[in-house]
Amino acid sequence: MQVSFSAEAIEAMVRPRETRGATVQSVRGIAGLTAAATGDLSFLGNRKYKSQVASTQASVVLLPADHLGEPAADQLFLLVENPSAALSLICARLEQSLWPKPSAGIHPSAVVAPNAIVASTATIGPLCVIEEGAEIGERVHLQAQVFVGRGARVAEDCWLQPGVIVTAECRLNARVRLQPGVVIGSDGFGYDFVNGRHEKVPQVGIVEVGSDVEIGANSTLDRARFSRTWIGEGTKIDNLVQIAHNVIVGRHCLICAQVGVAGSTTLEDYVVLGGQTGVGGHITLGKGTKAAGQAGISSDLPAGSFVRGTPGLPFQLEQRINVLKQRLPELFKRVQSLEAELAELKKSSS
Amino acid sequence: MQVSFSAEAIEAMVRPRETRGATVQSVRGIAGLTAAATGDLSFLGNRKYKSQVASTQASVVLLPADHLGEPAADQLFLLVENPSAALSLICARLEQSLWPKPSAGIHPSAVVAPNAIVASTATIGPLCVIEEGAEIGERVHLQAQVFVGRGARVAEDCWLQPGVIVTAECRLNARVRLQPGVVIGSDGFGYDFVNGRHEKVPQVGIVEVGSDVEIGANSTLDRARFSRTWIGEGTKIDNLVQIAHNVIVGRHCLICAQVGVAGSTTLEDYVVLGGQTGVGGHITLGKGTKAAGQAGISSDLPAGSFVRGTPGLPFQLEQRINVLKQRLPELFKRVQSLEAELAELKKSSS
Amino acid sequence: MQVSFSAEAIEAMVRPRETRGATVQSVRGIAGLTAAATGDLSFLGNRKYKSQVASTQASVVLLPADHLGEPAADQLFLLVENPSAALSLICARLEQSLWPKPSAGIHPSAVVAPNAIVASTATIGPLCVIEEGAEIGERVHLQAQVFVGRGARVAEDCWLQPGVIVTAECRLNARVRLQPGVVIGSDGFGYDFVNGRHEKVPQVGIVEVGSDVEIGANSTLDRARFSRTWIGEGTKIDNLVQIAHNVIVGRHCLICAQVGVAGSTTLEDYVVLGGQTGVGGHITLGKGTKAAGQAGISSDLPAGSFVRGTPGLPFQLEQRINVLKQRLPELFKRVQSLEAELAELKKSSS
Repeated sequence: MQVSFSAEAIEAMVRPRETRGATVQSVRGIAGLTAAATGDLSFLGNRKYKSQVASTQASVVLLPADHLGEPAADQLFLLVENPSAALSLICARLEQSLWPKPSAGIHPSAVVAPNAIVASTATIGPLCVIEEGAEIGERVHLQAQVFVGRGARVAEDCWLQPGVIVTAECRLNARVRLQPGVVIGSDGFGYDFVNGRHEKVPQVGIVEVGSDVEIGANSTLDRARFSRTWIGEGTKIDNLVQIAHNVIVGRHCLICAQVGVAGSTTLEDYVVLGGQTGVGGHITLGKGTKAAGQAGISSDLPAGSFVRGTPGLPFQLEQRINVLKQRLPELFKRVQSLEAELAELKKSSS
Repeated sequence: MQVSFSAEAIEAMVRPRETRGATVQSVRGIAGLTAAATGDLSFLGNRKYKSQVASTQASVVLLPADHLGEPAADQLFLLVENPSAALSLICARLEQSLWPKPSAGIHPSAVVAPNAIVASTATIGPLCVIEEGAEIGERVHLQAQVFVGRGARVAEDCWLQPGVIVTAECRLNARVRLQPGVVIGSDGFGYDFVNGRHEKVPQVGIVEVGSDVEIGANSTLDRARFSRTWIGEGTKIDNLVQIAHNVIVGRHCLICAQVGVAGSTTLEDYVVLGGQTGVGGHITLGKGTKAAGQAGISSDLPAGSFVRGTPGLPFQLEQRINVLKQRLPELFKRVQSLEAELAELKKSSS
Repeated sequence: MQVSFSAEAIEAMVRPRETRGATVQSVRGIAGLTAAATGDLSFLGNRKYKSQVASTQASVVLLPADHLGEPAADQLFLLVENPSAALSLICARLEQSLWPKPSAGIHPSAVVAPNAIVASTATIGPLCVIEEGAEIGERVHLQAQVFVGRGARVAEDCWLQPGVIVTAECRLNARVRLQPGVVIGSDGFGYDFVNGRHEKVPQVGIVEVGSDVEIGANSTLDRARFSRTWIGEGTKIDNLVQIAHNVIVGRHCLICAQVGVAGSTTLEDYVVLGGQTGVGGHITLGKGTKAAGQAGISSDLPAGSFVRGTPGLPFQLEQRINVLKQRLPELFKRVQSLEAELAELKKSSS
C-alpha cells in the first residue's frame, strides 16, 4: 500500500490514554513486534509476547494502558485500553485506501439489460452482466466481471467483488459482502433414479442472503428445490464452503473454510463450524452448537452442543477416545497377558 | 419468480385422478405444508407429514390418491399417484420461466475467434470468449462470461452457466450442463522432484465429459497427463468436487459435494460417493460402490461395496467400531479391574 | 490436438541410445501401452507393465535401455535411459502447441486503467480488467477474463489463466502460473464478537506469491490481516486449496487438492500435505513434514514428521491403530470371556 500516516494521525485515530517517546517516522506499514522495521507500526495484542516489546524496531507501538517499559530513541509508545481494537481502527482507515469508494455509475463495458433497475448511486464496474428484471440498490458496488441474473435483487450497500455470480431470482439483503468467485444460486443436487438413470429434479427455489452477511471466495450456495435456501443476518461464511439446497442458516453463525452442509438442514443462531466440517442432510443443529474442524455430524444436536470427530461426539469424550485409541496396542497386550495368566491359574488350580 | 398458474393450469399439468374442493387463488409459489400461505401450492411427499395436511394454508395441495381428508374453504386437493413426481412436473414448467430459452446468436460483447465454428442455433451470451478452432454445437447456450479454449468442442444442447471455463482441446458431449464457475481442463498436478525442486510434468491430455452429465458450481476437472480424463454418460457431480488427471468415472455415478478423487483412479458405473469423501490415486472402485460422507478410500473395492470412515471399512463394521470406541473408557477400566482381581486371586491362591 | 510428429522428429527430441524397428506412421497421440492404437506413442514407465510391451499397438514405444524384446512390423522402439523423462520431453513440445506463445499486446476488449503499467512484451487477453496502479511485467500472459486489482504487481513471465482474480496490492513474483479461477487476496476470515454480532476485523495485508509457484484451479489465498500471507518459491498447490490469512508456506512444498491451512500457521520448506488434509491455526509444521490424505493436524510437528489420521499421529502408530480398531468387537468379547472365567474361578476357589 502507498500509505503513510504521521504519528499525529495515528494518535488522532486511537486516542491513547498516554504517550511515551516520539518518532519522526511516518507509518508506512504494520507488522508483528519481531518482524517490524523502522516506519512500521506494531502492537502487543497478546501478553505472552510482552518480552518482544523491548527489542522491536517498530516506530510506533500500541500497548496496553498498564505497560511499564520505555521506548527506544525515535520510537513512540501509545498506551490504549485495547491494543488490538486500536489496531482495527487504523486498519479500517487503511482499508478505505485499499478499497476506495468508487464513483457511482455504470462502466461502459458492462452489459445491463434495458429493463434492469440500477440505482443512480450504485457502481457497476467493468465487464459486469446484469440480466433483465434484476434490481441493484443504492450504493451497491459490483466491482468487475460480476454476474447478476434475471430478476435477482441486490439491496443497498452490498459489495460484490470480481467474478461473483448471483443467478436468477436470488436476493441479497443490505450490506452483504461477497468475496471473489462466490456463486449464489447454483442448482441444488437433486435427482430421481428412474430406469437406471438419474433424472433431474428441477430446482426452482431461490437463495436469500440476510443483511450483513459476508461470504468467502469461491463458496457455493445452492438454490432451493422450491421456496428458499436462507442465510441469516450477520452470519459469516469463509472460503470454499458448500451450502446445499433448502439449508436454513441462522443469524450470526460462523462457518469456516471448506465446510459442507447437506440439503434441508437447519443451523440455528450462533452455530460455529470449524474448517472442513461436514453436516448431513435433514437435521437441526441447535442454537450455539460448536463443531471442531473436520467434524462429521449426521444427527440432530441440542442447543449448546460442542462436538468433535466423525461421527461427531461430545468434545470431552472424543478427546478421551483419541488418547485411549493410542493405547490400543498396549490394551491388546494386556488382555493377552490376562488370558495367559488366567489359563495358567486355571491349570494350576485344577 | 413472477409466476402465476391458475388452478386449472395446475390440473392440466398433473392430471389428477380426483379433485376435491376448489380455489379462486392462482398459484404464485411453492412451499412445504407448514410454511405454505394462501396462493401457495404444497404437497405431501412423505407420509410422516400427513397430519400437517389438515392445517396447511396452501391453496392447492398435491396428495396421494388414497388420501382421506377434505379441503378447507378456498382450497383445492389434487389426488395423484405420486405427489413428488407431480410436483416435479410443475417445477419443470417453472424452470422454463426461470431460465427461458434464449434467442440464438452471438452477443456483440462476446469475443469469438474468426476460425471458431459456432452453430447458427447456438446462443453465445455477453462477454464470452471463444478461442480459435473451438466448435460450438447446435442449440448450445453459453450464458455469460464463459470461456471456451482453443480447439475445444461443445456438443449440441449443452448449457454452460456464467463463469464456466473449458480449456483447450477439451470435449463436452451432448446435453452437458455446467453450473457456474466449473473449470474443465486445468492442469493435472504432476511434478518430478529434480535437484531439490519440483519440475512440472507437462499435462497435454484432455478432459472429455460424456452426454447428459451435470457438474456443480466451482468444481474442477483436471486434464490428463496424456490421453484423457473421462466422465461417463449420465453421471452427476455436485459443487466443489475435484477430479484429478486421468481419472475415469463410469456412467450414472453420483458424486456429492467436496469429494476429491486422486489421479488415475477408476470409478465404475453407478458409484455413489457421499460428500467430502476422498479417494486415493491409482485404484478402482467396482460397480455400484457406495461411500458414506467423509469416507477415505485408498485401495481397490469390489463391486457393490458400501464403506464408511477413514480408512473406508464395510459400513456395518465401521458402525460397530463407532459404537465400541465410545466404550473405550469403560473397556480400559474393565481390563484394569481384571488385572487387579487376578493379582488378588493369584496372591490368595499362592 | 491437431499434432503430428514424424518418427524422426520424436527421435530428435528424445535422442535414444538405440533404435529398433521402424514405422511409417507419424505420432498423433500418446497413450498407455494397452490403450494405444496405430499412430500413438507409448512408453514403459513402470517395469511392472513390461509384459504389455509385446502386444501394444503403439507405433512408437519408449523403453528402458536394457529392454530385450523386438518391435512388431511398422513399429519403432526407442531405447532411452528414462522413458518417463523422455515422454516429458515430448509432452513439453506438445504443450507448446496446446498453449502457443501469444503475441504481445492488449486485446481491445480488455479494460486497463490509464495509470496501470503494462510491459510492452506482455499479453493482455480479451475481457481482462487491470485496475489503477497495477504493474504487469515482461512477457506476462493474462489469458482471458483475468482481474488484477489496484496496485497489484505481476512479475515477468507469469501466466494467469482464464478467470483468475488477483486483488488489490497483492504480488506475484516471476514465472508464477495460476490455473483458472484462482483467487489471490480475498479477505482473511477475522471477526471480533461484540454485542452479539461478529464485527469485521479489517484485512489490510497482502498475499505475496514466490517465483516458480503454481496454484491449481479455484484455490483461494487470503490476504493477511496486516503484513502478508506468503507462498515460498517453487511451491506447488493443487485445486480447491484454502490458504488462510497470514499463513507462511515455505519453499518447494507440495499441497494437494482440497487442503485447508488455517490462519497464521507456518509450513517450513519441503512440506507435503495429502489431499483434504486440514491444518489448524497458529502452528508450525517443521521442514519436510509429510501428512497422508485427510489428516487433521492441530499442533506443532518437528521436522521430518510423517503423520496420518485425525488427530494426526505418527504414520506407523495410526496404521497400527487402524488395524486394531477393526479388532475391537473381538477385544470386547475377549474381555467379557475373561470376566466370566474369572468370576467362575473365584466362585470355585472360594
